[in-house]
Amino acid sequence: MPETEPDQTRTQTRRQQILDAAAAGFVRHGFHGTSIATISKMAGMSPGHIYHFFANKEAIIAALVERKLEESLALMRHFDDAEDAFQSMLDRVDLGVNQKTDPDHAALEIEILAEATRNPQVAAMVQAADVAMHEQVRKLLQRARLACGLSGEVDPAVTEITRALFDGLTARAITNPGLDKEALLPLLRVTLRALIT
Amino acid sequence: MPETEPDQTRTQTRRQQILDAAAAGFVRHGFHGTSIATISKMAGMSPGHIYHFFANKEAIIAALVERKLEESLALMRHFDDAEDAFQSMLDRVDLGVNQKTDPDHAALEIEILAEATRNPQVAAMVQAADVAMHEQVRKLLQRARLACGLSGEVDPAVTEITRALFDGLTARAITNPGLDKEALLPLLRVTLRALIT
Repeated sequence: MPETEPDQTRTQTRRQQILDAAAAGFVRHGFHGTSIATISKMAGMSPGHIYHFFANKEAIIAALVERKLEESLALMRHFDDAEDAFQSMLDRVDLGVNQKTDPDHAALEIEILAEATRNPQVAAMVQAADVAMHEQVRKLLQRARLACGLSGEVDPAVTEITRALFDGLTARAITNPGLDKEALLPLLRVTLRALIT
Repeated sequence: MPETEPDQTRTQTRRQQILDAAAAGFVRHGFHGTSIATISKMAGMSPGHIYHFFANKEAIIAALVERKLEESLALMRHFDDAEDAFQSMLDRVDLGVNQKTDPDHAALEIEILAEATRNPQVAAMVQAADVAMHEQVRKLLQRARLACGLSGEVDPAVTEITRALFDGLTARAITNPGLDKEALLPLLRVTLRALIT
């Protein structure tokens, strides 16, 4: 019998609850310090219930990597309808800054990266998500160049540096908790302008 | 009786051995997965010997943070004698790229950052090292501006963005193992030029 719509919604809600609990656990105790038992307590569900949705912790990490990718792609979609993608990027550079420096985002991002350096399975997930994100950033940079009357060819190094710039803000937010995000915006615009044009 | 010189050298060598073993352990098993017993096995010393040099794991992390800071400051000293600090930065931008994308550096950096998000003691160490590094980067950017005939006033946001750019390379090296470092150099020069002048 196929799941009815309310069933699907309930499944989705349950999955999100588990992912929220797991993310909080990973950030607080690290990936290895967070057992399925811990996650089940934090989510207010039985371990059996968790296993109904996810085979193991790796499957939970995979879903978290997927969810983070979705969030980043959703943020990129803000620029989909912009007539002038270049101006739109400069105008809303705060979107990237806010996402990358959000303390919860930063902590989970770094925890997943740390795990990727020692767990080949997690490394493969992170790399696959990275390729998908890379293509979206490249497309946006291409539209930005076209909006400036330039060729649509994007030097792969430009995409890399643009991503390093924003990924680096995550590290900066952790090492400098007094980071003045507002003050970064004009400088990021200068940098993006130099990179894109 | 004061330590004789060979004693001091031996002490230094022993400390470095312990730090190397701890760094390898933290990278492979995470901070929480690495006990003093593990470190002692990896360093080929008794746990008692380890405790002779370090009171606990936090003291080992503190020494590793200190050593990483020293390495970064040593790298910055490359520019100390440059007559034209601006040109010298552009010429040797590869020094920063190579340090930040080195797999061992990247893995330890990310592990320490992850620990900083959940351990206030480690966060305080990382932040203190960051302030020291920040001042050195600011001074170099100041000399670069002066070499360009500009004022010696460095917008703090410029220092932040410059650091985000290089810190971000560490994340890029992990998420994109095929990173073409050589291709980044000209683009990093374009970016630094735009930021500094």
